Amino acid sequence: MPLPAAKTDEQQLKLLQDWLTSYKVGELIDAESGKPIDEICSIIPKEPERKLGQVPETYKGYTALNLPNWLDFAKNKEGQVSSLKVSGELLAKVIEQNKSTFRIFSPDELESNKLSEVFKVTSRNFQWDKFSRAQGGRVIEILSEHTCQGMMQGYTLTGRTALFPSYESFLGIVHTMMVQYSKFNKMGQETNWRPPLSSINYIETSTWTRQEHNGFSHQNPSFIGAVLNLKPKHSRVYFPPDANCFLSTLSHCLRSKNYVNLMVGSKQPTPLYLSPEEADSHCQAGASVWKFASTDSGVSPDVVLVGIGTETTFEVISAASILKQKVPEMRVRVVNVTDLMILGEGHPHSLDDGGFASLFLTDRKIVFNYHGYPGELKSLLFGRPGMERVIIEGYSEEGSTTSPFDMMLRNNVSRYHVAAHAVKGAGLHNDRVSVRQHELVTGFMHEAQKVKEYIFTNGKDPEGCYDVPTF
Amino acid sequence: MPLPAAKTDEQQLKLLQDWLTSYKVGELIDAESGKPIDEICSIIPKEPERKLGQVPETYKGYTALNLPNWLDFAKNKEGQVSSLKVSGELLAKVIEQNKSTFRIFSPDELESNKLSEVFKVTSRNFQWDKFSRAQGGRVIEILSEHTCQGMMQGYTLTGRTALFPSYESFLGIVHTMMVQYSKFNKMGQETNWRPPLSSINYIETSTWTRQEHNGFSHQNPSFIGAVLNLKPKHSRVYFPPDANCFLSTLSHCLRSKNYVNLMVGSKQPTPLYLSPEEADSHCQAGASVWKFASTDSGVSPDVVLVGIGTETTFEVISAASILKQKVPEMRVRVVNVTDLMILGEGHPHSLDDGGFASLFLTDRKIVFNYHGYPGELKSLLFGRPGMERVIIEGYSEEGSTTSPFDMMLRNNVSRYHVAAHAVKGAGLHNDRVSVRQHELVTGFMHEAQKVKEYIFTNGKDPEGCYDVPTF
Repeated sequence: MPLPAAKTDEQQLKLLQDWLTSYKVGELIDAESGKPIDEICSIIPKEPERKLGQVPETYKGYTALNLPNWLDFAKNKEGQVSSLKVSGELLAKVIEQNKSTFRIFSPDELESNKLSEVFKVTSRNFQWDKFSRAQGGRVIEILSEHTCQGMMQGYTLTGRTALFPSYESFLGIVHTMMVQYSKFNKMGQETNWRPPLSSINYIETSTWTRQEHNGFSHQNPSFIGAVLNLKPKHSRVYFPPDANCFLSTLSHCLRSKNYVNLMVGSKQPTPLYLSPEEADSHCQAGASVWKFASTDSGVSPDVVLVGIGTETTFEVISAASILKQKVPEMRVRVVNVTDLMILGEGHPHSLDDGGFASLFLTDRKIVFNYHGYPGELKSLLFGRPGMERVIIEGYSEEGSTTSPFDMMLRNNVSRYHVAAHAVKGAGLHNDRVSVRQHELVTGFMHEAQKVKEYIFTNGKDPEGCYDVPTF
Repeated sequence: MPLPAAKTDEQQLKLLQDWLTSYKVGELIDAESGKPIDEICSIIPKEPERKLGQVPETYKGYTALNLPNWLDFAKNKEGQVSSLKVSGELLAKVIEQNKSTFRIFSPDELESNKLSEVFKVTSRNFQWDKFSRAQGGRVIEILSEHTCQGMMQGYTLTGRTALFPSYESFLGIVHTMMVQYSKFNKMGQETNWRPPLSSINYIETSTWTRQEHNGFSHQNPSFIGAVLNLKPKHSRVYFPPDANCFLSTLSHCLRSKNYVNLMVGSKQPTPLYLSPEEADSHCQAGASVWKFASTDSGVSPDVVLVGIGTETTFEVISAASILKQKVPEMRVRVVNVTDLMILGEGHPHSLDDGGFASLFLTDRKIVFNYHGYPGELKSLLFGRPGMERVIIEGYSEEGSTTSPFDMMLRNNVSRYHVAAHAVKGAGLHNDRVSVRQHELVTGFMHEAQKVKEYIFTNGKDPEGCYDVPTF
């Protein structure tokens, strides 16, 4: 920079030479052999296994985890269960069965994120305390996302497998580190002597939908978009809608290689929509029609309602339940997308045109109720035929320190918004709905307003707001 | 967290009480008045102007800059000029005319980013050195994007105006800080006693298109997407394609209020496509047809070629020049988009349907050659009619330590890729092009391969690769 013409200008060359020779590199290198002097070489350990490049962990490659069967941890369709809590049970078993090949790197919120089941079989790894260190804690907990990310990368590079659970909004902090690692991994996979590695695995929880006491500052789902920008070959984003789906997804991710896996889920108890077997095939498919919430199993619907994300899916199911009672003449199909990558084109998981039409039809309005920024979904769906029939709602940077349901209302993803969109869409194909459209839509919006006022007055969501919807 | 049932469980309540009383808050508060004790209150300065909340800068609000006319710095259409270098000249004048209301916060690369003209009138502000500090340097340079961001925010909150030039890939580091600030600013604007503030202004340069010696690690345009996810009311993204457009945009941004402004530009010399007056109206429109590069001023084209970004636009112009020579029977329209927000819907700058059709027609193929991730453009264009006629190329995470033109080739945004897309698109409407399609496309791809081999063999781009294209 300061001597741009050193190649052609004698004076600049002289200045460059004087500067570089001032380091006296000749004192550190043996003039005859060209090797570093003995004093430097003496730093290198004599024992091969102590040389950094020869530590077995740096080259021995990937070791698969001995994973339990996730079905052993699955729940029956009863009551409400926290995806993260049940994942903690599975992870405890993973730790027991893989004493030296699995670690959790957690930026300080393992308990808050409801993964504390793992502490039944392991502990935190405190480096300064001989006693706790001696317990061999498999949880590295430090309130620095950057440090957790760096340690996860290093650990993964030794052929072992790591998990990084985090508050949703804080993952954005390590966005560029994750992209750098993915670039490194891409080049590694293009290099023929590099073995495969485990994926790096993120659980994104404590999301914008449930930030009653933290508020607007803790509402940032942008890490999803960061993963979507990676090469499709290496990127995976999952929104398992209930505990069984979460178990299946987590188990799949811990088994996968060379990906960046992002799993978005809720730590709060949510209904179990699917039996273990149903969850298994739903997660394999990445998306499917949920017959229990659809009219006539979803055949010949007037409108398609799609939930992507735990709470946004709950609102879709709630809307379908409301619609069944209030507009029985309307035919509704409910779809859940758990693997986001099925929607786009050019990804290994992409639906082909037939698969897309099978789920979303070709001529009905589709109402997407999405967890992330609407732009992400627009980007994925771009190029699919007939997209003028799509309505997308999602997080639109509307937030505050407020109740969970108020967050749904503010971002237009509440059951009332879904129901209103559904009626408007269905009305195009069903005259009996169309004739009631204005009455129904204003009714839903009036209901939304009433709930908003209740929350403002009482500082909490109405009783029963999160009861399991009935059909 | 550790005492969740303190509200109903006597024992938990007792534990909570013991814990809280252990802080002995009673010793710090006067029991009668409820005020802090004198010892605490004595810390507060007696002089009103020394109390933090009463320092005038914290409440006196926005002070507009006294800006020079950017046209005084504009260049005639001759040779090649660095947008950043000429911006440095404008900024020097801004500093001279606004001795206490303008600062540049720069993460260590002001010279590398070619803004060093400002050092003719000011200096860096070194805090540890009384002499240089006394010079009143208006450039705060510190190799910490986080610190620069924090200081820019604080400075802006005092009603003054700041600029943050950065390497493109490093802005991602402060992504979440920028989002937090924008959330704060949104709430501030919704609060009726908060005055408006200057925008926060980013210049993103040293981009992925010109990273020959840094390579893949320095290629990350994701900050663009971060700004796109903000509320439309507050977000602006500009890609001024030449030095005159950059001056106009910079001048506009420094005058604006309450936005996050992102200007993406090149520090390398690039052709001046537009005269000062043409640049003025181009930037006002946000996009326009470039007649000099279009066939017959762009009337009734077979295909529309769109450049967004400095280098990607240069490749479009180069493609148009090649096509004019090799396929004179083909009619081409060239459009440049300098204000990204005109493309989407729901933004104050959005083109209406008529405006969109006027630029991009309704039935011709549109080839977008874009600087950022293709997903961003897909997200913006989603919902516009007839999008099945759109082809989008952009940065697709293909990179290495390689020459600038090789980066164009690797990411399919080279003149040869644009020309091939153009021929395929035009062939749908022009039989004389269609009949030569295969010959032409394979010819362009052969040319691309030859250049790739030249770069691999010689370690540099071919001579003349960046000469101003002729028409």
